[in-house]
Amino acid sequence: MKKWSKENVVDTLPVRKSDAHKGTYGTALIAAGSRFMPGAAVLSAIACMRSGVGKLEMGTEESVIPYVIQHLPETTFVPGFYERLNDLPFNHYTVLAAGPGREENDETEKVVQTFLSTDLPVVLDAGALRERTYQKRKSPVILTPHPGEFIRISSFDKEKVEQDRQAAAAEFAAQTGVTVVLKGKETITAFPDGETYMNTTGNSSLSKGGTGDTLTGMITGMLCCHDDWKHAILNAVYLHGACADHWIKTRSPHTMLASELSELLPEVWKKYEQK
Amino acid sequence: MKKWSKENVVDTLPVRKSDAHKGTYGTALIAAGSRFMPGAAVLSAIACMRSGVGKLEMGTEESVIPYVIQHLPETTFVPGFYERLNDLPFNHYTVLAAGPGREENDETEKVVQTFLSTDLPVVLDAGALRERTYQKRKSPVILTPHPGEFIRISSFDKEKVEQDRQAAAAEFAAQTGVTVVLKGKETITAFPDGETYMNTTGNSSLSKGGTGDTLTGMITGMLCCHDDWKHAILNAVYLHGACADHWIKTRSPHTMLASELSELLPEVWKKYEQK
Amino acid sequence: MKKWSKENVVDTLPVRKSDAHKGTYGTALIAAGSRFMPGAAVLSAIACMRSGVGKLEMGTEESVIPYVIQHLPETTFVPGFYERLNDLPFNHYTVLAAGPGREENDETEKVVQTFLSTDLPVVLDAGALRERTYQKRKSPVILTPHPGEFIRISSFDKEKVEQDRQAAAAEFAAQTGVTVVLKGKETITAFPDGETYMNTTGNSSLSKGGTGDTLTGMITGMLCCHDDWKHAILNAVYLHGACADHWIKTRSPHTMLASELSELLPEVWKKYEQK
Amino acid sequence: MKKWSKENVVDTLPVRKSDAHKGTYGTALIAAGSRFMPGAAVLSAIACMRSGVGKLEMGTEESVIPYVIQHLPETTFVPGFYERLNDLPFNHYTVLAAGPGREENDETEKVVQTFLSTDLPVVLDAGALRERTYQKRKSPVILTPHPGEFIRISSFDKEKVEQDRQAAAAEFAAQTGVTVVLKGKETITAFPDGETYMNTTGNSSLSKGGTGDTLTGMITGMLCCHDDWKHAILNAVYLHGACADHWIKTRSPHTMLASELSELLPEVWKKYEQK
Ligand SMILES: Nc1ncnc2c1ncn2[C@@H]1O[C@H](COP(=O)(O)O)[C@@H](O)[C@H]1O
Ligand SMILES: Nc1ncnc2c1ncn2[C@@H]1O[C@H](COP(=O)(O)O)[C@@H](O)[C@H]1O
Ligand SMILES: Nc1ncnc2c1ncn2[C@@H]1O[C@H](COP(=O)(O)O)[C@@H](O)[C@H]1O
Ligand SMILES: Nc1ncnc2c1ncn2[C@@H]1O[C@H](COP(=O)(O)O)[C@@H](O)[C@H]1O
Ligand SMILES: [Mg+2]
Ligand SMILES: [Mg+2]
Ligand SMILES: [Mg+2]
Ligand SMILES: [Mg+2]
Repeated sequence: MKKWSKENVVDTLPVRKSDAHKGTYGTALIAAGSRFMPGAAVLSAIACMRSGVGKLEMGTEESVIPYVIQHLPETTFVPGFYERLNDLPFNHYTVLAAGPGREENDETEKVVQTFLSTDLPVVLDAGALRERTYQKRKSPVILTPHPGEFIRISSFDKEKVEQDRQAAAAEFAAQTGVTVVLKGKETITAFPDGETYMNTTGNSSLSKGGTGDTLTGMITGMLCCHDDWKHAILNAVYLHGACADHWIKTRSPHTMLASELSELLPEVWKKYEQK
Repeated sequence: MKKWSKENVVDTLPVRKSDAHKGTYGTALIAAGSRFMPGAAVLSAIACMRSGVGKLEMGTEESVIPYVIQHLPETTFVPGFYERLNDLPFNHYTVLAAGPGREENDETEKVVQTFLSTDLPVVLDAGALRERTYQKRKSPVILTPHPGEFIRISSFDKEKVEQDRQAAAAEFAAQTGVTVVLKGKETITAFPDGETYMNTTGNSSLSKGGTGDTLTGMITGMLCCHDDWKHAILNAVYLHGACADHWIKTRSPHTMLASELSELLPEVWKKYEQK
Repeated sequence: MKKWSKENVVDTLPVRKSDAHKGTYGTALIAAGSRFMPGAAVLSAIACMRSGVGKLEMGTEESVIPYVIQHLPETTFVPGFYERLNDLPFNHYTVLAAGPGREENDETEKVVQTFLSTDLPVVLDAGALRERTYQKRKSPVILTPHPGEFIRISSFDKEKVEQDRQAAAAEFAAQTGVTVVLKGKETITAFPDGETYMNTTGNSSLSKGGTGDTLTGMITGMLCCHDDWKHAILNAVYLHGACADHWIKTRSPHTMLASELSELLPEVWKKYEQK
Repeated sequence: MKKWSKENVVDTLPVRKSDAHKGTYGTALIAAGSRFMPGAAVLSAIACMRSGVGKLEMGTEESVIPYVIQHLPETTFVPGFYERLNDLPFNHYTVLAAGPGREENDETEKVVQTFLSTDLPVVLDAGALRERTYQKRKSPVILTPHPGEFIRISSFDKEKVEQDRQAAAAEFAAQTGVTVVLKGKETITAFPDGETYMNTTGNSSLSKGGTGDTLTGMITGMLCCHDDWKHAILNAVYLHGACADHWIKTRSPHTMLASELSELLPEVWKKYEQK
């Protein structure tokens, strides 16, 4: 089983170009948050802005805007996102993500289908995860289910998944043609071409609400600053876990909050950058 | 008089399981906050999320939601909590708590009675404290009064309580069949089976509004990550005081805010974890 | 000219009583904030909660509540403050303050007159400063004008005030029977009995909007935890300046924000506490 | 090509006067923020308050007020800003700025024209940037375009600008009579009198949404505390970049948020102050 190692991370992290401007790293669009789960939008937004993106726009209900701005004034918003869905200027965006803080419902599915109809990389999590087939498209689709969600979207048996998570993820990726990040202790990332990696970072401080929303934001941001989209995913999963590993050096694993992963990222990421 | 000592804490703190996911530590439901006392919901929520819980849902008036999310985007909310009270999916929860930032009124009492009618552990504080009898039930009920509240709910004489707090608390626990955490300098925890402990941490920096709300959140969270519910309570009371003791090493006791107890908890807790 | 020195501070700072509860240090009521100046309520509230009070209630427009809670969930609010003004349970409070973030208008004056009609210490700042006479009362009235405000409320000539601030403040205090804290570099505190002190701390990092609101909160809080109300005022002015002096050791004086004074207070205060 | 060097900064940074009061450093008025871009108002406000101003008033839609106060309670607001535009007491202000978080539309242009009709220094950024001619006036006008904005307001060819940014900026400043800060790696500041400087600080961590809004706030604040307005601009650009350079010493350049520049400013600025 291939592991994504510290050396892999050091070798593949992008150098931020000295003559870059915010356009160089593109604009991410994250569709997240709802009335009773607004915080997931906040968590994914913070994580994305910490992960190399140039600009971030949120597609969300207007009631969610205040929460994001309070935590992250750097964000802007798509006016009338749900009404304008068929009319969004997708050539303006670099990466699309959907799902954190969303119910699995028709409105969410409409967002997903609209995103999938573009040529852009699409990250789907939480409420955007559903059993469906995927058309061939120019850019990757990345799903980030935890085991419960994976069973739901794959219709695989619980036993099958538990017995060999890697095989199950690989089978799913091959069948559907999309990338699956099967989360948990030792997260499996299975690409549709058969490549599969196991993550080696992270610990049980991550077993708390919101850490998945943070991961979605990190993957989205890293897709914007990496040339190779596979490296972006693998590095996001790795650094997400490395932040948690940094936390428990001086603090109890019972006490971490998901937002703190993003606060730790700047210093943790630095450690993997070549001098 | 038995004291809950540093050694007891070290011996009984749970190890966070390396293969845990957020479901492993369950979901707490805290009913707290109201229009003119919204902050108590915030304080108990922060404390709970710092104390080992898997997920946190708040049952509160919609006007309180923004305050919680601003401080803690990791939280989610029960839609229409007060209307759906008879209809809540209690098998979805692990621990229930009620009272911080609530007036002692009919609406609060309805929440309390609904919570008591379940099989789950129930923590009652502040506005949820009232003189009442308790039915035998599967899981513990924990009351966390300060002396003024204790006198109100016990109808004991002020003198009786002041003369021997431990005896009074023990008598109350035996009579009612519930656990009482009689707060103050050297908090007494009296269990209905007669066991009684005195806490040895804490100081007068805790004599400020909001510290009790923080304790309620800590007890609720710790009930989610401890196997033994008695240890959960005793450790929560102990660490709550230990955070205050940490504060005054470098800062004046006049200056602490209740929310800071939760900020100190990660490093303080770590000190009691076995290597 | 008498100076309030470091030794005076060390000698007069209160020891927080080991068996205190939040009632021991009483409840402050601050009437502050308005629609276009809501932040002053926030600043005075934070400062007060950091300065030894037991509990804090804010009397403010409902639109101001969110701002305070976002910064300070430990605060509660008087429901319908302006409507219930004649009906407030003043025996419930320990110290009253009014003015930060208030226009000098009829509504503010009604608050001031109501506060003055009680037996409690009253602190008046900003919009609550007006030329008026004061009845003899049981507890002190403390005014905290900057020179511009002082000229307005005293009808003294600008020249007279500039030539000898101490004499002017002392004359005003003797005439009106109230205490005046004439702010600025080397703030003068003149008591109605003729005692007058010059403050020796502070620097030009304080020359920025909001620092006066912070001082009002500190005086209010310290009145709650000092036995001697004169010491409370003198120590609040001193420590307010000492926080600014601490700031400029490592940071430019051009860059300080008023809220940061309160963040620095816990460690600064500690330095003056006897071992 | 002249560079604005560390020595220039050390020589020209103002000493904050020991007997200053907030009036000494004047009041800035920033017109910024809109419904879907409220955060830019926050970012420019924070940066301005950190940069030596005495007081800050924001001219903005009422929906933006909460966001600013949540981050910066030290700010106040112009009641009914857009309605009262022709009626504002401009003798009350020291420096005016407009544009961050604004669309380029009629309402924004009305603000710009009103500001330009005063005798005060005016900083224009983002939505306030438009191709226009400028009347001779008493105080400087400062435009802060990035290259894309510069091409739009100058109608210069993209090639011309890219080939020799300095010449293009100097030509524009000479033609229009206003100062242009042409942002990017090695920002060019061209004054209408022909003087032109290249900035030597900053790095690609600045290639992220919001960093320009922060620069606008810093320039605005520094105009309030510098005697020489040219030094104010050059020092703001320099320190803005120096904060970013400080960030990457210990943190990855991919991870910085625009608001953090302002958090780093106090310590970074201090390093350039003469003992
Ligand atoms: N025990 C664990 N060890 C390592 N990673 C974990 C553990 N529990 C949860 N995680 C990670 O935390 C996140 C949880 O995502 P979610 O279930 O969507 O909230 C995923 O990135 C998981 O890989
Ligand atoms: N003087 C003190 N010494 C130790 N703990 C205290 C003291 N005063 C208050 N506390 C604790 O602070 C909290 C106050 O709760 P409450 O009265 O509900 O706000 C309880 O946990 C008390 O045990
Ligand atoms: N140059 C200065 N030196 C010392 N203290 C100052 C200076 N400028 C302002 N202050 C203090 O800052 C506060 C300003 O209050 P206000 O004018 O109401 O905002 C008062 O406490 C003043 O004493
Ligand atoms: N690669 C870079 N190196 C140095 N400064 C940069 C770089 N990219 C952006 N900046 C600065 O970041 C800010 C971006 O402003 P704006 O484009 O309006 O958001 C300006 O101050 C630029 O000078
Ligand atoms: Mg998830
Ligand atoms: Mg309580
Ligand atoms: Mg003032
Ligand atoms: Mg810009």
